[in-house]
Amino acid sequence: MQNHTKLHDIGVIGLGVMGKNLALNIADNQYSVAAFDLDSDKVQGVVQQEKSDRITSKQTQVPLRINGCNNLSEMLSSLEKPRILVLSVPAGAPVDGVCKALIDAGIESDDIVIDTGNSLWTDTVEREARYSKQFIFFSCAVSGGEMGARFGPSLMPSGDIKAWDRIKPIWEAIAAKVDAETGLPIERQEPGNPVTEGEPCTTYIGPAGSGHYVKMVHNGIEYADMQLICEAYQLLSDGFAMTTTEIADLFNKWNQGSLNSYLMEISAEVLRQADPISGKPLVSMILDKAGQKGTGLWTAVSSLQIGCPAPTIAEAVYARAISTQKDQRFKLSQLLKGPEAAKPTAEERDSFIAQLENALYCAKIACYAQGFQLMAMAAKDKGWNLDFAEIAKIWRAGCIIRARFLQSITQAYQAAAIDGIELDNLLMADAFCIALSEKQLDWRKAVSAAVMKGIPVPCISSALAYYDSYRCETLPASLLQGQRDFFGAHTFERTDKPAGEKYHLNWSHADRDLIKV
Amino acid sequence: MQNHTKLHDIGVIGLGVMGKNLALNIADNQYSVAAFDLDSDKVQGVVQQEKSDRITSKQTQVPLRINGCNNLSEMLSSLEKPRILVLSVPAGAPVDGVCKALIDAGIESDDIVIDTGNSLWTDTVEREARYSKQFIFFSCAVSGGEMGARFGPSLMPSGDIKAWDRIKPIWEAIAAKVDAETGLPIERQEPGNPVTEGEPCTTYIGPAGSGHYVKMVHNGIEYADMQLICEAYQLLSDGFAMTTTEIADLFNKWNQGSLNSYLMEISAEVLRQADPISGKPLVSMILDKAGQKGTGLWTAVSSLQIGCPAPTIAEAVYARAISTQKDQRFKLSQLLKGPEAAKPTAEERDSFIAQLENALYCAKIACYAQGFQLMAMAAKDKGWNLDFAEIAKIWRAGCIIRARFLQSITQAYQAAAIDGIELDNLLMADAFCIALSEKQLDWRKAVSAAVMKGIPVPCISSALAYYDSYRCETLPASLLQGQRDFFGAHTFERTDKPAGEKYHLNWSHADRDLIKV
Repeated sequence: MQNHTKLHDIGVIGLGVMGKNLALNIADNQYSVAAFDLDSDKVQGVVQQEKSDRITSKQTQVPLRINGCNNLSEMLSSLEKPRILVLSVPAGAPVDGVCKALIDAGIESDDIVIDTGNSLWTDTVEREARYSKQFIFFSCAVSGGEMGARFGPSLMPSGDIKAWDRIKPIWEAIAAKVDAETGLPIERQEPGNPVTEGEPCTTYIGPAGSGHYVKMVHNGIEYADMQLICEAYQLLSDGFAMTTTEIADLFNKWNQGSLNSYLMEISAEVLRQADPISGKPLVSMILDKAGQKGTGLWTAVSSLQIGCPAPTIAEAVYARAISTQKDQRFKLSQLLKGPEAAKPTAEERDSFIAQLENALYCAKIACYAQGFQLMAMAAKDKGWNLDFAEIAKIWRAGCIIRARFLQSITQAYQAAAIDGIELDNLLMADAFCIALSEKQLDWRKAVSAAVMKGIPVPCISSALAYYDSYRCETLPASLLQGQRDFFGAHTFERTDKPAGEKYHLNWSHADRDLIKV
Repeated sequence: MQNHTKLHDIGVIGLGVMGKNLALNIADNQYSVAAFDLDSDKVQGVVQQEKSDRITSKQTQVPLRINGCNNLSEMLSSLEKPRILVLSVPAGAPVDGVCKALIDAGIESDDIVIDTGNSLWTDTVEREARYSKQFIFFSCAVSGGEMGARFGPSLMPSGDIKAWDRIKPIWEAIAAKVDAETGLPIERQEPGNPVTEGEPCTTYIGPAGSGHYVKMVHNGIEYADMQLICEAYQLLSDGFAMTTTEIADLFNKWNQGSLNSYLMEISAEVLRQADPISGKPLVSMILDKAGQKGTGLWTAVSSLQIGCPAPTIAEAVYARAISTQKDQRFKLSQLLKGPEAAKPTAEERDSFIAQLENALYCAKIACYAQGFQLMAMAAKDKGWNLDFAEIAKIWRAGCIIRARFLQSITQAYQAAAIDGIELDNLLMADAFCIALSEKQLDWRKAVSAAVMKGIPVPCISSALAYYDSYRCETLPASLLQGQRDFFGAHTFERTDKPAGEKYHLNWSHADRDLIKV
């Protein structure tokens, strides 16, 4: 299929939705691409797509930049050396399958292979070491879905810093862009006309695995943010009898304010969508069993293992698990009693809507605080030097959790850096402190209303418990330590003695003396 | 040190608190014991303890049954063949260290080694396979702490069923006992006078690893149950200005009713305890940073990996994590605003106490439902045939979560078995359904009060969200699936089409047609 004699700038292996769109995005940015997939239809598909994009964009005179390859050897011989190859194949065994095939095809030690799949970050660490003699295994987590890949994703690269120097120009070209003044995305989805101004949503994250870890946490936050919006939807529909269109209107309105986010915007779109078959609201025809691909649960698992509180992210994962058990829910919906529901008045609804908007904003702060706290604790644990202002910056556009809110987080970390303060927890940032103090009462009222109405709000309420726990100088863990010492002689520290000194009360003896262990 | 010529019934290796007490318990039950520890003082210690116990129990004429050994070879040659050896060493590398030393010392292929530590269940599975040629690696999880090991623990054995036949008589002798009529523990803590009547708290759980898995979930439930009590304590002290003595009195009263449990009993004891140094309530002098040994987080991790909702167990693990971050909490307690607190009246306090009692009972049902659901899903996943009535039975005495409540769970599973029903979720059991329906309103009021007062109740509120989620025939996961399909083409099922049929809406195209994938 090769029909150009000039060597190409970059190879893309795997032409599913993501790989295909990355290839088209790279080509739009004036780099020439060698493209390969085991499925030759997909190879033809991307070549054809570039041609039809030229027609759409009325740029038929511009030379085509994507070349299909018949196999990996052909791809390798068609690339400029040292080569840059992008893998877009499913996480897990396929990544190693392609790596081995590349070795067989003659890849060289200074060639770079960039894994852009949703790989588990520990696999990435292992792969960098495993392939270090044959080539440079580099990784780059990609967020933004199909459209992000095509017109500008958020890119989280990690691995060999020297490899990054070579990748950087291409990555900065294809990444989503943010207006430097406003911190808002520069949105333009036109083939052949990429956004070239603004701040690119990519930055070198750190050593191997760190980019995928950061992306994993991004997805954990995404799970929580999506669930928060779903809880708001259920409260408004089941609790206040609002129609999907009314809720879509409200979400659009919220999207103009502090709750502005891509997820809020698309939630309004989904709610407004009619089902092409029945004409009813599509959302009423979608089965309420949530799928998942693992990144949310990995985030929760990592937080548990590191000992970092991320309860709201975990609750979001569990909410998906409960949704899948529809048979149990059906049975239990017949058996278990809820509260009597009084029909709310229009005034009650309006005042609840105002409370809920504030509640969502507060819960969102708590979720993001958990995610950033997890990255900070993981970075300490693994010896990564992560720059959280930069991470927040590259999430302002391109990725699924992009939102005006990310600009506030960016500014919070930048301000802390200027003041020389380590921001242990985003709840400490001035802007969020003030917002939380103003809005916390509405948050409480919204949770209380949900609880009294019998509508589940696992994430909104878990986020509040997180907030209230951190507000406690003293927690009842003192009693818990007493329990543990009583039944298991696990010892405790004392408030009046130096940290690290362990004490045990001799609970099983009549005199119950205190022993310094 | 060997001073008996007769061969011994069983060997105990590792004479820390647990091993020492297990050895004394076994000896009290008329089995002779060969005891070894790398620390010869510990060997002397257990031998001396048996002698002093004889004096305490006025049984100086009874022959001593514990023999100290100088090394493992001596122990092996002093035991009846085929041998039974009990390991009581820290989980992890020490277990393999002893196994290897036993191989060097000449252990034989039909000898049984019982690991009684808090091993990770997957390690147990690996060990059974690894040592199968040299000896029979068997495992038995032990709950009940120091006193349980001495006078009757709950024992969760798993592994080779033929090995169990040989272990069973000893295990049934040393286990805690339950009165068959009442389902309540027969408590007697007298050296030389073990409880010999009643139903023993041990039953064969299943294949290798299953016993440790079940014990892990026991501990996960324990984490949640302890946290629930701690939340109640904080509500009563911070929210209603009750003194530790008043709360201890209340907990003692609750312990007479449906909230009866060992944990409630010891919580009252801890709260009533004065600090030997300052004379103040001990709990006010204990540092509020909770420790943990891993079993709670393993439970949460397993639930996430299996896809089983156990949010309240996870919240309990995270509550411990937050407690350890006292510096952050101190800073945030100065910065973050809570609600204005009105001083509650005595009537308000009394009505709150009644609500809280019901709330705790409901939350407790939800926690246990999560734990049993997790075991059921794990059993399906791993091909274990677990008998939940038997598991509930052996938790009625000896273990840390022992409570009258476990008798209700036993009966629920027994009733379901008689009716030929598989109890997917404990919330479905008649007795719990009725209790929940009666008490759910108080549960809501208690959570609402906590939320409005600004006192964190992560577990009580998470349990309520779990309950309310399962009451929903329809959850907003439909919107979530819509979001996922919008940004990632993740597809959805439809309520009007067969399960498994996947659909995608062409969101990025103007006509937005529906595609069957």
